Amino acid sequence: MAAQKPGIPKGTRDFSPLEMAKRNYIFNTIRSVYALYGFKQIETPAMENLSTLMGKYGEEGDKLLFKILNSGDFLHGMTPDEVSNTSTLKLAAKFCEKGLRYDLTVPFARYVVQHREELNLPFKRYQIQPVWRADRPQRGRYREFYQCDADVVGSDSLLNEVELMQIIDNVFQKFGIRVCIKLNNRKILSGMAEYIGRPDKLTDITVAIDKLDKIGLDNVKTELAENGLSQDEITRLEPVFAINGDNDSKLAAIKNLLKDNETGLKGVEELEFVLNTLHTLPIANAVDFDLTLARGLNYYTGCIFEVKALDVQIGSITGGGRYDNLTGIFGMPGLSGVGISFGADRIFDVLNQLELYPKDIASSAQLLFINFGPTELTHCIRLAALTRQAGIRTEVYPDSVKMKKQMSYASNSNIPFVALVGEDEIKNNTISLKNMETGEQKSVTVEEAISIINA
Amino acid sequence: MAAQKPGIPKGTRDFSPLEMAKRNYIFNTIRSVYALYGFKQIETPAMENLSTLMGKYGEEGDKLLFKILNSGDFLHGMTPDEVSNTSTLKLAAKFCEKGLRYDLTVPFARYVVQHREELNLPFKRYQIQPVWRADRPQRGRYREFYQCDADVVGSDSLLNEVELMQIIDNVFQKFGIRVCIKLNNRKILSGMAEYIGRPDKLTDITVAIDKLDKIGLDNVKTELAENGLSQDEITRLEPVFAINGDNDSKLAAIKNLLKDNETGLKGVEELEFVLNTLHTLPIANAVDFDLTLARGLNYYTGCIFEVKALDVQIGSITGGGRYDNLTGIFGMPGLSGVGISFGADRIFDVLNQLELYPKDIASSAQLLFINFGPTELTHCIRLAALTRQAGIRTEVYPDSVKMKKQMSYASNSNIPFVALVGEDEIKNNTISLKNMETGEQKSVTVEEAISIINA
Repeated sequence: MAAQKPGIPKGTRDFSPLEMAKRNYIFNTIRSVYALYGFKQIETPAMENLSTLMGKYGEEGDKLLFKILNSGDFLHGMTPDEVSNTSTLKLAAKFCEKGLRYDLTVPFARYVVQHREELNLPFKRYQIQPVWRADRPQRGRYREFYQCDADVVGSDSLLNEVELMQIIDNVFQKFGIRVCIKLNNRKILSGMAEYIGRPDKLTDITVAIDKLDKIGLDNVKTELAENGLSQDEITRLEPVFAINGDNDSKLAAIKNLLKDNETGLKGVEELEFVLNTLHTLPIANAVDFDLTLARGLNYYTGCIFEVKALDVQIGSITGGGRYDNLTGIFGMPGLSGVGISFGADRIFDVLNQLELYPKDIASSAQLLFINFGPTELTHCIRLAALTRQAGIRTEVYPDSVKMKKQMSYASNSNIPFVALVGEDEIKNNTISLKNMETGEQKSVTVEEAISIINA
Repeated sequence: MAAQKPGIPKGTRDFSPLEMAKRNYIFNTIRSVYALYGFKQIETPAMENLSTLMGKYGEEGDKLLFKILNSGDFLHGMTPDEVSNTSTLKLAAKFCEKGLRYDLTVPFARYVVQHREELNLPFKRYQIQPVWRADRPQRGRYREFYQCDADVVGSDSLLNEVELMQIIDNVFQKFGIRVCIKLNNRKILSGMAEYIGRPDKLTDITVAIDKLDKIGLDNVKTELAENGLSQDEITRLEPVFAINGDNDSKLAAIKNLLKDNETGLKGVEELEFVLNTLHTLPIANAVDFDLTLARGLNYYTGCIFEVKALDVQIGSITGGGRYDNLTGIFGMPGLSGVGISFGADRIFDVLNQLELYPKDIASSAQLLFINFGPTELTHCIRLAALTRQAGIRTEVYPDSVKMKKQMSYASNSNIPFVALVGEDEIKNNTISLKNMETGEQKSVTVEEAISIINA
């Protein structure tokens, strides 16, 4: 067979050792904080039945599902005429029973319902796995990417919201990224729609408000008018846009505005609990009540939140909220939940831009033994067994090639220490240990080498 | 929409928190040992171009590839006639450009060739990711499972083989699983085929020898005869089956038998180097030269190895070997490599059967604060912030429900300590700390609680 020019599908990525080290740093940090709050990890299969996935992400979402061709005779004896008389979408449904997961939320809802007998509610789970979307690839948007979700289901307590805020604060403190956590409540948005007498227009109103930052007040008003709001209704909404100040002033203002609206006041009350509780806790980052935060997903029903990095221009790097009926579609209604999702790819970019990765992220091994030939090698292998026993990540250069090549391997691999063990060192039972950063080289015992490297 | 009964595709699995804890223990142990030897992690996409995968796993393998339906109009305007005149396999190739990876070896070869300019040879990589095969699911065989591979490419040195044996020994020592590492060399098998004058029958001979354990000598001889070996050729092979004793005696015997065969002697020499070097190193498990070890994969060309658990009846739990030309198919010939693969699912079963998991594997949180109501809760949240700051995985029960329900949550979640903080405790600034295993309860400060739990 002729040699193939190798490549990978568009929108997918290989991760090099350095990229993996950085990604593992991100995932491990998030994982450790999730665990600190008692969240437990689960995993679900990459493939779900298409019946589980279809209809959960809107019509556009259905098209973005990667579908897996049934094995064997996927035509199921369809005649060519039947094939040509069936729409592509219907054919795909005939040919494919399975699809790749599109997010972690629907598989989680499926998991909760399927395993409800085994679950110890409230169930606090986290899940860090890739998802796939047949989106048009573009800068920063991939067809395969990881999600890092945590959710609590089976508890209505607002303490869960508080803890998710603490988790966000903890994670970004660990990363050294300064953030602002924006907080709102869907009930306030509903209250506003009710207040102007257009509860039917909740979605249009939230979508328009969501754009305030980007397109400005005049354009938002135009969009609202185009979506069927009367001039009077828009005028009634206007005071909302004027609300500003610190959290307390904003809460007071919206409370006053919605004083006759039960839903809205419930939303305000929920936010007050979350914000007041956070006040009693050691939180490093700002938490900002933001009336213009809407979040696209329709299943949110309570608190919603989003995180913005302060020192890098980039979209939201974490988001989440409370939903009241995620498992209803799978036959288990009435289970409330609240969750967050860290955007690993964007966090990766932010850490890169701000150069916040740990200094030694690029180095895998800590020590390389140079290979001077068979006799020296035999000796070095035994020494390497000792340094490894002491927990030092150690390589022995496998081939006895030119010293220069071995040294450049060490330097390209960012290995901080090199051990040179020749005839003299073997005789004296020492190691010539070279610090690759300073260039300093000294003769030490293996025990001394271990403590220098561990220092 | 009517509620759906949720399920997952056959041959796939959900992993519960306990299963994940056990799997993470396995992956993290393997990962840490790989890192100790200077291996670097990479990841490749779940989807590869089908052109990368097809033809690499034999005809049967091609059928077992999961293929992904092209997005949009996958029919590409084929007429009904064209559809009916095209075989199912060819149609699949028309409808699908991408497939799910079948193993980690081919994607790794593709990676090496695609990124050759960036690689610092010898390249020591490890990769722990799921693979997918449309195999008929059965006990212990799944359609989605993880592989944990490590390979070194770009070095012919047998030191790599030695280090892989050390890694195997290290990993199973950490697990506490007693194993026997079986070692052979493809060159010895080639030498035997040449020795009886049938180098053309190498595959048949290795396949037959591989079955010696299972079907016995007589049946092996019958199979060899059926595969076209003459009685005389089989008789010449027979002394091989009689070879036994310790490694040294077996090596001496095969060396004598193949004394005129260059290939065979090269294989013996390679094994001698590996075994002699291992003798100088602290290895806990037996390494056994096994002439009947063949390993199915045809790309192996040098040392091959397999690991058997001593205390559980189960197939090989790790395997690997040297190959000379894995990247040739992608246009980069002459790159030698050697690798191993740990069988995570079987290791999972062995650890379960021998009950070798760490004792606290089932517990996620270490401490649960009982929720006695809003006032106590506010206080407990602050205490929880302190225990978490001290690194203790802490939960606060979110809802103020009956004590009994909260205690049973703690016990079902295997949380070892429960903190009861009521009016008195708040006044005295203490915690009533209950040890869930012993039932003992005592009044302590938060600092004392932290040191008790950390002990």
